[in-house]
Amino acid sequence: MRNRSSAGVHKDLSHQLADRLGPKGWLTSDLDRYETDWSRRFTQRSLGVAAPDCTDDVVSVLRLASQAGVPVTPQGGNTGLCGASVPIQPNSIILSLLRMNRITKIDPLEMTISAQAGVVLGDLHKAVAAENMMFPMHLGSEGTAQIGGLINTNAGGSHAMRYGMMQDLVLGLEVVLPNGSLWHGMRAFVKDNSGYQLRKLFCGAEGTLGIVTNAVLRLFPKVVDSSTALLAISDLDRAISLASKLRASLGPFVSSVEFFSDTGLGFVLKHVDAASFPLTVRSNYYLLVELTSSAESIDTRDMMVSVLSAAHERNALEDGVIAANEGQRQSLWRLREEMPEGQRREGAQLKHDISLPLAKISEFLLEAERSLHELLPGVRVNAFGHLCDGNIHFNLSPPVESDDFSCCDRDISDTVHSLVEQMGGSFAAEHGLGRTKRDTADRLRSDVERNLMRSIKCAVDPSNTLNPGVLVAR
Amino acid sequence: MRNRSSAGVHKDLSHQLADRLGPKGWLTSDLDRYETDWSRRFTQRSLGVAAPDCTDDVVSVLRLASQAGVPVTPQGGNTGLCGASVPIQPNSIILSLLRMNRITKIDPLEMTISAQAGVVLGDLHKAVAAENMMFPMHLGSEGTAQIGGLINTNAGGSHAMRYGMMQDLVLGLEVVLPNGSLWHGMRAFVKDNSGYQLRKLFCGAEGTLGIVTNAVLRLFPKVVDSSTALLAISDLDRAISLASKLRASLGPFVSSVEFFSDTGLGFVLKHVDAASFPLTVRSNYYLLVELTSSAESIDTRDMMVSVLSAAHERNALEDGVIAANEGQRQSLWRLREEMPEGQRREGAQLKHDISLPLAKISEFLLEAERSLHELLPGVRVNAFGHLCDGNIHFNLSPPVESDDFSCCDRDISDTVHSLVEQMGGSFAAEHGLGRTKRDTADRLRSDVERNLMRSIKCAVDPSNTLNPGVLVAR
Repeated sequence: MRNRSSAGVHKDLSHQLADRLGPKGWLTSDLDRYETDWSRRFTQRSLGVAAPDCTDDVVSVLRLASQAGVPVTPQGGNTGLCGASVPIQPNSIILSLLRMNRITKIDPLEMTISAQAGVVLGDLHKAVAAENMMFPMHLGSEGTAQIGGLINTNAGGSHAMRYGMMQDLVLGLEVVLPNGSLWHGMRAFVKDNSGYQLRKLFCGAEGTLGIVTNAVLRLFPKVVDSSTALLAISDLDRAISLASKLRASLGPFVSSVEFFSDTGLGFVLKHVDAASFPLTVRSNYYLLVELTSSAESIDTRDMMVSVLSAAHERNALEDGVIAANEGQRQSLWRLREEMPEGQRREGAQLKHDISLPLAKISEFLLEAERSLHELLPGVRVNAFGHLCDGNIHFNLSPPVESDDFSCCDRDISDTVHSLVEQMGGSFAAEHGLGRTKRDTADRLRSDVERNLMRSIKCAVDPSNTLNPGVLVAR
Repeated sequence: MRNRSSAGVHKDLSHQLADRLGPKGWLTSDLDRYETDWSRRFTQRSLGVAAPDCTDDVVSVLRLASQAGVPVTPQGGNTGLCGASVPIQPNSIILSLLRMNRITKIDPLEMTISAQAGVVLGDLHKAVAAENMMFPMHLGSEGTAQIGGLINTNAGGSHAMRYGMMQDLVLGLEVVLPNGSLWHGMRAFVKDNSGYQLRKLFCGAEGTLGIVTNAVLRLFPKVVDSSTALLAISDLDRAISLASKLRASLGPFVSSVEFFSDTGLGFVLKHVDAASFPLTVRSNYYLLVELTSSAESIDTRDMMVSVLSAAHERNALEDGVIAANEGQRQSLWRLREEMPEGQRREGAQLKHDISLPLAKISEFLLEAERSLHELLPGVRVNAFGHLCDGNIHFNLSPPVESDDFSCCDRDISDTVHSLVEQMGGSFAAEHGLGRTKRDTADRLRSDVERNLMRSIKCAVDPSNTLNPGVLVAR
């Protein structure tokens, strides 16, 4: 009886949505690209995919879904790594923002852009560049990731050390709340203390509190001069010391200090045809340093040369190269950006996305490697990431000639996460919790923090309509 | 019967707090400095002032107060302008953080400082400078304002255009919740997506969600070169155009673009002995521009000269001077910083703290002045503030030889706030809502926003113990 009744509810809702959204806005076939996540670990049959092309239609979807008691999972570019963009429960609605892809305003005076949630980051970059400005959010998936998803995951990326995360770049938001009411928060200025900082609360909420439909984002003057170097360095403590000196002496110009290990470099050179390595020696670690300036008459190459010469004199470097042109620059970045792809092609992998105090990074890597080799001798550690943020993608490959982690992947991840907590770090740095780390979060959190998070979820989404099961357990 | 019963509750609670906190921690006499706000507009007899010297004691105060159903108003330096630091209800507890004034760690590698909530901003500046770093929060009250208060009001100040507001500088927080439970959120890194962004939610909550007891704040490399100029400029559109050019061409170096009018300058020169005006001509408006660099080998004076020469050639300036030394720099800043004091000594005043889109500022000033002169002929407008943030302190003095605003102060403020809303601005930019703007906020807000704010308040403080009546009406 109960099944029949919910089947009826689903059928009615599907009809209502088809009527309201039309054939382009309510999809019920060929849904695999929506129902399966990027990592292909998670898949779930949905009631259908709502693809509204305006805020009013998002309002309708949420109003109808909440009345029917049907859960809604919002989806941006579906590039997330924690399974937050695919429903956990069957017969949910997937709400794709992909048709809401209009840039509504670029304002050179305010240095802001207003864009719908479905705008792809790479398209936004191009539109902003045409107006001689830039938006400083850069990550591997920028050709697919959408603004709404970036906001909901509070994306970080390779420029966060200088420009912050998404929450630091969002000025205003328009958000449809779980019951279909609309919050107009499209303010376009930094200083707005007219109540709780709702615009910040929705950043990183992983679609559990509201559907972001529009955003006002901060822009910056375009870069007019840059210099990029790849450095070989024997250990991470030396790398951290160099990064620290760079930040102290050239803070306003350092936009990225990325690092990767020789293990990761090996994967990239083995599997990615377009990758080439320009240094004459291999080393344990590599730093990719980029200096940029939007101010004229700043010679970032000159600055880079001075810093590297001084480092060389201190014997802090094994080798180094400064890109001579844009092609070489892209070639250096490719080594870092293909890191996930190189490892993916190597076979099975187990990813962790952690933050650590800089002073703890070397100790963590030693200790983690030791513990993991006890659990699984021969496990291969590929640590890379955003050094100045202490943000490490601590990704593992199984021992050579193994296909997987011999069923100890859970023990491995627990070991990694516990060690991170012990060292005062975060086990969820920039990828969020989604469904993959929700239970870990619940276990590691204090009762107080768990209750706070639940209270907020219940206050904003009392009927648990939005992305249930993600970020916080209820 | 009810009165007698609550008198009993109060007496018991006072005894318990005296026992727990000792004579330095529970004060019941000479309370005027705590019970009256800085503006001397608000005063309220309290049950007593709790001045705990550690987090455990804050926990005890909130546990006992919430059990007794007695409201608690946290207080920092008591320099707020909206009456949020003095209780609205009689027989509340004032919780002063002034004894929790220890800096627990300055970390040059992480570039962070950990400080208790009662640390005075000026003391923090000195401690950080001794370690060759700086904390970029600057405002008039920095000799008195405390870190906890700055966080709870999400302070902005004169460097926000480059470094952001308090919420952008806070990495971690320790917060005692209304029922006395303790949230450990003292993380020290930018990238932490392990749940809702609680650290951001407490910023600007005006003590209504929790008592901030400790914070981890971001630091920056110390400034090694700076250049400060005072410019006379005939109208604000020219000033905005110049500011926009500065930001585009010298973005990484522009730390402040402050403005004030000739009316405000007149108040300062009339009432503040130490103030002197270095230009040869008076004009309608003045800009105070400061360029700073933490990178060596950057000549900010040279940059300033180029920009001003170009502006001069475009006839964008009436006059200008660049400070030749630190004494002259301080003398220029004094003109801007003494603006509130100059106007205070002129007599009665009516303050507004607004944000506007830059493109609307001139129109707003014209329109507001016209409307206000209809309400009160001769009213004097003193507009000054942080130009690039669109943040204007729109402060009024009554007509010359009037003592007050002839009882139309409420109409005046309503007119100002409505006009700000019409023009897409914020009527509460950096001072917050407190009690003075709470009802205006409630009136101007949409039902959706009002409900969201109330839901959050109810979720975190269900018994309405913390600073009731402030920020949000229940």
